[in-house]
Amino acid sequence: MGTFIRGLETTATYDPTTEEFVLHTPTLSALKWWPGNLGKTVTHAVVLAQLYTRGKCYGLHPFIVQLRSLENHEPLPGITLGDIGPKLGYQSNDNGFLGFDHVRIPRRGMLMKHSQVSPDGSYTKPLQQKLAYGTMVFVRVNLVMLSSYYLSQAVTIAVRYSAVRRQTEQIPGGKEPQILDYRSQQLKLFPYLAAAYAFTFTGWSTRYRYMEVQMEMNDGNMEALPELHALSAGLKAFTSYVANEGIEVCRLSCGGHGYSQASGFPELYGLATPLVTYEGENTVMLLQTARYLMKCAATAKRGGGLPGFVLYLNQRQKGQCPARSESDLLDHGLLSDAFEHRARRTVMDAAQQIDSEVAKGNPQHVAWNNCHIYLLKAASAHCHFYVVQTFVKYINDTEMSDAVRDVLTSLCQFYALHGIWQNAGDFLQDGYMNGKQLDMVQSLVGKLLDKIRINAVALVDAFDFRDELLCSKLGKYDGNVYEAMYVHDSYYKYLRPMMQSSKAKL
Amino acid sequence: MGTFIRGLETTATYDPTTEEFVLHTPTLSALKWWPGNLGKTVTHAVVLAQLYTRGKCYGLHPFIVQLRSLENHEPLPGITLGDIGPKLGYQSNDNGFLGFDHVRIPRRGMLMKHSQVSPDGSYTKPLQQKLAYGTMVFVRVNLVMLSSYYLSQAVTIAVRYSAVRRQTEQIPGGKEPQILDYRSQQLKLFPYLAAAYAFTFTGWSTRYRYMEVQMEMNDGNMEALPELHALSAGLKAFTSYVANEGIEVCRLSCGGHGYSQASGFPELYGLATPLVTYEGENTVMLLQTARYLMKCAATAKRGGGLPGFVLYLNQRQKGQCPARSESDLLDHGLLSDAFEHRARRTVMDAAQQIDSEVAKGNPQHVAWNNCHIYLLKAASAHCHFYVVQTFVKYINDTEMSDAVRDVLTSLCQFYALHGIWQNAGDFLQDGYMNGKQLDMVQSLVGKLLDKIRINAVALVDAFDFRDELLCSKLGKYDGNVYEAMYVHDSYYKYLRPMMQSSKAKL
Repeated sequence: MGTFIRGLETTATYDPTTEEFVLHTPTLSALKWWPGNLGKTVTHAVVLAQLYTRGKCYGLHPFIVQLRSLENHEPLPGITLGDIGPKLGYQSNDNGFLGFDHVRIPRRGMLMKHSQVSPDGSYTKPLQQKLAYGTMVFVRVNLVMLSSYYLSQAVTIAVRYSAVRRQTEQIPGGKEPQILDYRSQQLKLFPYLAAAYAFTFTGWSTRYRYMEVQMEMNDGNMEALPELHALSAGLKAFTSYVANEGIEVCRLSCGGHGYSQASGFPELYGLATPLVTYEGENTVMLLQTARYLMKCAATAKRGGGLPGFVLYLNQRQKGQCPARSESDLLDHGLLSDAFEHRARRTVMDAAQQIDSEVAKGNPQHVAWNNCHIYLLKAASAHCHFYVVQTFVKYINDTEMSDAVRDVLTSLCQFYALHGIWQNAGDFLQDGYMNGKQLDMVQSLVGKLLDKIRINAVALVDAFDFRDELLCSKLGKYDGNVYEAMYVHDSYYKYLRPMMQSSKAKL
Repeated sequence: MGTFIRGLETTATYDPTTEEFVLHTPTLSALKWWPGNLGKTVTHAVVLAQLYTRGKCYGLHPFIVQLRSLENHEPLPGITLGDIGPKLGYQSNDNGFLGFDHVRIPRRGMLMKHSQVSPDGSYTKPLQQKLAYGTMVFVRVNLVMLSSYYLSQAVTIAVRYSAVRRQTEQIPGGKEPQILDYRSQQLKLFPYLAAAYAFTFTGWSTRYRYMEVQMEMNDGNMEALPELHALSAGLKAFTSYVANEGIEVCRLSCGGHGYSQASGFPELYGLATPLVTYEGENTVMLLQTARYLMKCAATAKRGGGLPGFVLYLNQRQKGQCPARSESDLLDHGLLSDAFEHRARRTVMDAAQQIDSEVAKGNPQHVAWNNCHIYLLKAASAHCHFYVVQTFVKYINDTEMSDAVRDVLTSLCQFYALHGIWQNAGDFLQDGYMNGKQLDMVQSLVGKLLDKIRINAVALVDAFDFRDELLCSKLGKYDGNVYEAMYVHDSYYKYLRPMMQSSKAKL
């Protein structure tokens, strides 16, 4: 849902003789699939369908439709529905399918706040076509929060377990170290620990921005919507990809025990991985962001001004990264500049590639498709820059103790430097950074692991997830992992007292 | 299992007065966890334990132990066991846990082919200490095959579904294209399609090499074992990481339907993801490979000769990639050289980093830990080079029709070029490639997508998986995806004929 809704095939055709809409699903592949609670539970649904009246199609509109009898819960005549069966996760949700065979509903079943069909079948269009975008932006901004939320949980479990679990003596006869002391383990977990913080700040920042834009929209000013719409689509994709990947890296970092349901990971992954798909599939979202960025690039090339965050596309490209020493590379401004440079270069590069495809005689949609590689990179680099900049800004603008600022500063440096290291090609390809600078980046990534190690457990404890929420034997706050895996808490809490009291009575 | 087995805590202490071994698990955390079929089924197990006799520990040895009564299937006295509960996958397997409380077994319970404990408690060590490695190598070589097998299945499902599924018109009113025609979709699937082929050839090649080495070992020649041991450990990790990641990319490329169990993906992932962990956790495996490579690097620096595949570490580093045009970059030799260069550089770089850590006064194990970043990169680059070279060799050395050679040649070029593009930093950092060459690589990756598209369905059909094996409604050979999701095959095959025949009888 949310990917190509304008292509939806179900129709709602107005019949003025009876003042009813006729809902119809024309093909098997047009069945609606996936709505939650549809399989066994719901009695009514809001259905999106192509509105036809007086022989003309007006596109998608929402209708409230009764699906099941309130007497015996059977589907009403003409309605086909059921449960779509088991899934990777969300087993407790009865996701369903739905189709209509000429089902008639009263005219007032159409939700007519914005557009109307009058009894005689005449159509009134909404005052503002873009209003629907506002809701989509709101949902996607919340998905950024949700990505950080799930990722934070995974990191909490893995960091806590890595502080408890010991593995492989380093010196013959020596004690096996906590696995959190291994650089290889840190290298798995700390990028996602840093990302969990970065995405939390990103979520807050975009939510705040959404509220500002919503207030402007209430005053009839829609100007800021396109930029926020593009940003939120891209961030939804960027953050949910990282969360999806990070949860699995965290699970695998716990060895075999991560594979057990008792770790909490399989359930968590089942909840988080649909984020990649729902409310706009991630690739489609990134391409949507790219489409906006291509418009901006064209504006910038013409010398036109750009709004808000995309203003950076108006700036001239910087020559070279000025870092001469490792300490230069710890500077937040310099790091943010590097991501800005990469975003601008990849956006401009993608625009250039499309132009040259068009110049070869390809139609626009072929040029667009041929440039997917460049467009996806550009959209992703744009979002990555936003996240880095937001992290930096949060530290600069927020009141906090020096001690906390210190910890977050290292985490932010690490997030940015690790991002450069992971995407080294993007920073080297045009000579913005050189090999020697990359060597320093790599060395700093190692050194910062040490720094973050000291506060790693505190950093996940600060997310403040209760054991009851994490549902993980590996991620227990008290660290008694093996005891919890062997005997379930409920034995001590409920069973034993009960059995002992009944024994006493005998 | 297989990660730090020498640290196993369960003991088998020989008691000459009764000619028995006493098996004992000293702590809760020393319980054996995970063995398949232990939870509810098995009656006997081969148990690895630290052998003590005459007050001395001789390390791990295998013992056959009866666990359950053959009368009533109850655990025998002193034996604690049970099912470890639900997991991410493998639900039909009753993985279990096991502990011993001073359990006595007869002396002959020790498997004494290679080492013996005589009735009086004297110990005879095996003729050849390294023999046990042979089995580990055999298992890991097979896991490379298994990675390619699971990955091939995922790619088959995703490519077939992408040829059936249509999404989003490109021109207003135009037909929605097959999603396999989108470059973004190709960019998700074709790297794993190419990897599935590359890993198949790698699996064959290492299995053949294992048989050669095994024959040498039968003649008492163990020389080739260390190299193959290191290579198989690394390849197990390298290929299973890619398979693990690839299955999820394939699943997500199918949108919401990939999340349904009916897609076959959730079950497949449940089977494949433990490959990352079992028979030696991947990070530990890569570090094992790195340890061997560091020895080789030291030998090479001293001017000593190296055996077999690691011979490349004896070669002088090449100056710069000679590619001047896109067609140069399609040359298999040039591509293989690039991966060779990267492997050698990262191996030598890691050795250098360790030396400089030691020079700073760090003990060896601290230096090693501090260099994990470099070591993991080196081990991975080594394996990546092996896979590319094996792919190239397979095409060169195998008889096949020109048409097939053509298709595999493109696939091999794509595998290598996509690998360079994904790891661009490694090829740019020391100036072996320059930004212009990288631009050409990126452009070729796009062009090769088009070429592979033509044969993509044939390439997955060639894996020749039966529908009954794939168990996927999305990956059905006949492409009738939506019908199969809506009505289960068994209705047409069994239920309807039965119901119609019983109706006829009435």
